Amino acid sequence: LRRNATAQLQKIISRTHPADLAYTFSSLTPEQRQSFFRVIEHTDRERAAEVLSELEPGILVRFLEEVEDRKLVDILEVMPPDDTADTLDLVRDEERRDKIVAMMRTESQAETESLLAFDPESAGGLMSTDYFALEQNTTAQEALEQLQKEAGEAEVVFYLYVVSEHDTLVGVASLRELVRAERNRPLKEFMIPDVIRVRVDTDQEEVARLIARYNLVALPVVDDNNRLVGIVTVDDIIDVIRSEATEDMLLMAGAGQEDVSRYNSVLFSFRTRWPWLFPSFLGGILAMLVVFDYSHALREMIPLAAFIPVMIGMAGNIGTQSSAIVTRGLSLGKYDFVELGRVVLKELVVGTLLGVSYGVLVAAIAGTLFWQQDTYDSASPLIFAGTIAASLLAAMSVAATLGSVVPILFKKMNLDPATASGPLVITAIDVLGVWIFLAIAVLMLGL
Amino acid sequence: LRRNATAQLQKIISRTHPADLAYTFSSLTPEQRQSFFRVIEHTDRERAAEVLSELEPGILVRFLEEVEDRKLVDILEVMPPDDTADTLDLVRDEERRDKIVAMMRTESQAETESLLAFDPESAGGLMSTDYFALEQNTTAQEALEQLQKEAGEAEVVFYLYVVSEHDTLVGVASLRELVRAERNRPLKEFMIPDVIRVRVDTDQEEVARLIARYNLVALPVVDDNNRLVGIVTVDDIIDVIRSEATEDMLLMAGAGQEDVSRYNSVLFSFRTRWPWLFPSFLGGILAMLVVFDYSHALREMIPLAAFIPVMIGMAGNIGTQSSAIVTRGLSLGKYDFVELGRVVLKELVVGTLLGVSYGVLVAAIAGTLFWQQDTYDSASPLIFAGTIAASLLAAMSVAATLGSVVPILFKKMNLDPATASGPLVITAIDVLGVWIFLAIAVLMLGL
Repeated sequence: LRRNATAQLQKIISRTHPADLAYTFSSLTPEQRQSFFRVIEHTDRERAAEVLSELEPGILVRFLEEVEDRKLVDILEVMPPDDTADTLDLVRDEERRDKIVAMMRTESQAETESLLAFDPESAGGLMSTDYFALEQNTTAQEALEQLQKEAGEAEVVFYLYVVSEHDTLVGVASLRELVRAERNRPLKEFMIPDVIRVRVDTDQEEVARLIARYNLVALPVVDDNNRLVGIVTVDDIIDVIRSEATEDMLLMAGAGQEDVSRYNSVLFSFRTRWPWLFPSFLGGILAMLVVFDYSHALREMIPLAAFIPVMIGMAGNIGTQSSAIVTRGLSLGKYDFVELGRVVLKELVVGTLLGVSYGVLVAAIAGTLFWQQDTYDSASPLIFAGTIAASLLAAMSVAATLGSVVPILFKKMNLDPATASGPLVITAIDVLGVWIFLAIAVLMLGL
Repeated sequence: LRRNATAQLQKIISRTHPADLAYTFSSLTPEQRQSFFRVIEHTDRERAAEVLSELEPGILVRFLEEVEDRKLVDILEVMPPDDTADTLDLVRDEERRDKIVAMMRTESQAETESLLAFDPESAGGLMSTDYFALEQNTTAQEALEQLQKEAGEAEVVFYLYVVSEHDTLVGVASLRELVRAERNRPLKEFMIPDVIRVRVDTDQEEVARLIARYNLVALPVVDDNNRLVGIVTVDDIIDVIRSEATEDMLLMAGAGQEDVSRYNSVLFSFRTRWPWLFPSFLGGILAMLVVFDYSHALREMIPLAAFIPVMIGMAGNIGTQSSAIVTRGLSLGKYDFVELGRVVLKELVVGTLLGVSYGVLVAAIAGTLFWQQDTYDSASPLIFAGTIAASLLAAMSVAATLGSVVPILFKKMNLDPATASGPLVITAIDVLGVWIFLAIAVLMLGL
C-alpha cells in the first residue's frame, strides 16, 4: 500500500465499528487479512483487539495460526481478560498456547490462567471480570462519583452490584435507581437484596435459562464463598442459545456430540459419529432378516422388492417431520402437558391423511407399471396396486404416531427428546416399514 | 380455598417472581390455573398481567380460551401495549379478538390496534413503546431530573435516546455517560450521533443480526420519517433466535414452514407437509425404477433384496450427519470460505472410514447368513460378502460427500443451506444408494 492510501485507510478504520471491520475479513484472502490487520493494529491496538474478538471462530482459528506470537501477546494484553481466554481457547496447538501465556505480563497472565481453568461451558468460562461493584455503605452520591471516575469503557454498565466488606454479593441496584435515590442514602437502603446469581461452576445452559426466564441483561457470578467474581452478559448467552440449538439439531441428525464450534480431527469425528450410526446399522440388519423371512414371497413376486425403498423413504421422512415438530415444540414449551394426547392424535390424523394421498399416487404408478409386467406375475394389477397403497398408508400413519410418541416418552423419562428424534426413531420406522409392507403384501396377495 | 389459606397464598404470591408464578402453571390442570390466576389477580392486577406475559405460549393459548372477556380486558389494560398486542395475537378466534379490542379504553385501544397492524415478525411487531427519550437541547441535569421523575417501571432503562424537536432520532447516550457529563451540557454535545436503528418494517432476522453483531441491549425503531417510535430489547431477540433455529431444524427435517409456535389445524399441517414429502416420494419412485431395471439380477439372487434397507438406511444417516454438521457450521459462521474444500474433503475421509468399518461388519453378517443359503444360490459366500461391503463403503462415502457439498453449493447460490440438508439430499442419497449397490452387485457377482 502506498503511504497515502494507508493514511486514507487508517481514517476509514478509525470510523468503522469493529464488528464491521471483522465482517470484511470474510471476503479477504489469508494474506490480505494479515496485512489489513497490521494496518488496524498500527492505527489503534485496542481497536485491533476488538476486531479480533469479533471475528467468526472459523476465520479466527486460521488467523491465529499465522500471526506471530509476539504480536499476538501485545494484542491479548489490551483485551478484557475474558476475551483473552476465549481467544486462547482457539489456539489449537496447546504448546503454543502455553508459550503465549508465559510471554504475557505477570498480572494478565495470572488472570488469564485462572479464566482458562474454568470449564468453557460453565458460568466461570463465560463470565467477564469487568463489572461495577461497590461496598454496601457507599452513599448514592459517592456511587455516582465512582461511576464518573471509572476508567474502563470496555463493557457497558447495566447494574451496580452491592457487596459486603468481605466482597460477598448482597444486593443490586440499577443505574436508574441510583440516579433516583436521595444523595446521602447508603446503597444497602435502596438496593434489591435478593439477587439472582450463579456459581462459577453453574452449567451454561442453566445460566441461559435464568437470563431468558427473568429477562436479565447481566447475571452475577459468585465463588464458593458467595464472593462476586464476575458477570455473564446477555450477548454471551445468545451464543449459548445458538449452540444449544446446534446440539439439538445434531442429536436429531444423529451426529451426536460432534462440536461444530471447533475444528475436530478426522479421527475424532470418526469416533463420535460411529456409535450414532450403530442403531441405524442394527435396524438395517433387522430389516434384512425381515426381508429374508419373506424371501418366498419375493421369489414369487420380484416387483415387490422395487417398492421397499419408497416404503422406507416415505415412512422415514414423515417420522422425521413428526418427531422434529414435537421435539422442537417440547423444547420451546409449546405444549401444555395435559394435552399431549391431542398432539399425538393430531400427528396420527395428519399421517393418515398424507398416507392416503401418497398411497393413491403410488397405487396409480404401481398399477400402471404392473400392467406391463403382468406377463410374468400372477396377481391382478388392481390388487397389487391396492396392496402397495395400503402398505404405504399403514407405514406412514405408524411412522407419524411413533415420531410423536417417542419424544414425548423421552421427555417424561427426563431424557433429551432430541435424541429420540434422531436415528432411534428412524431405525424403528425402517424396520417396521419393511415388515408392515411385506406382511400386508403376503396377506393381500396370498403369497 | 379457605379464607386463611388464601391469605397465606397471597403472601407467597406477592413475594414470588412473576416468571416463577408462570412456571408453576405448567403443573396445574386448566381449572386449577383459572382459580390460581383469580387469586393472583385479586392480590395484584399488575402482577397478574406480568404472569400472563410470562406464560408459555402453549399454556397461554388454552388459558385465554377459558378466561372471561371482561376480566381479560381488565388485565390487558394494565399491560405494556406491546405485551397486550402479543397476547391478543394468541387469541385464536378473530371475532373474539376484535370484540376484546373494542371493549378496551379508547387510548389503549388505539395503541394496541396500531401495534397489531405491524407484521409480528417485523421490528414494529417486536417493539416496545416504553422507552426513554429526550430533546437534544436538554441538559444533563434536566435529563437526570426527568429520569428521577419518570413513573413507569415496566422496562429497565438502558439507553437515553436523543431526539430533535421533530421527534426524529438524532443520538443516544448511555446512563453512564449521562452521569459522567457536566451538569449544564446539553445532550447533543455528549451523545453518540450515529445510532444503529431499524425501521418498523425491518424483518426480525435483520433485527436479531444487528443486536447480536453489535452486542446491543436495545435497538431503536423509527418510522418512515426517522421519528423514534419504539425499541426492541435483547430479551425479545432471544425468542427470535430460537425461532430461527426452529425454522432451520424443521427445514432439515423436511417439515417446511410448519410454525411450531402456533397451534395449526390438521388441514394446515397436511398442506404444509405434503410438498416436503414429494421429493422423497419422487426419490422412492426413481429407486423403484432402478430396482425394476435390475430385477433380472434380483431374480437370480433374491438375498440381494434383503440388503436394500441397510444400504439406504446407512447412506441416508451418514448423509444426514454430514449435511447437519456442515449446514449448522455455515449458519454459525464456523467456516472460512477459502477453505470449504477442506471441509468437503474431511467429510469424504470420515465417510470412507465409517464405510470401511461398517462394511467389514456387514460383510461378516452377510457371509455368515449366505453360508447357510448357499444351497439355492450360486455365488461364493466370500464374493457375496465382499460385494455387500464394497457397496456399503461406496454408498456411504458418496453420501457423506454429497451431504457436505450440497449445503455449500446452496449457500454459494444464496439459498438457505438448511433446505439442502432436508429431504433433497436424503432423496438423492436413497436413489444413488440403491443404484450403487445393484450396479456393484451385478459387476462383482457377474449377474
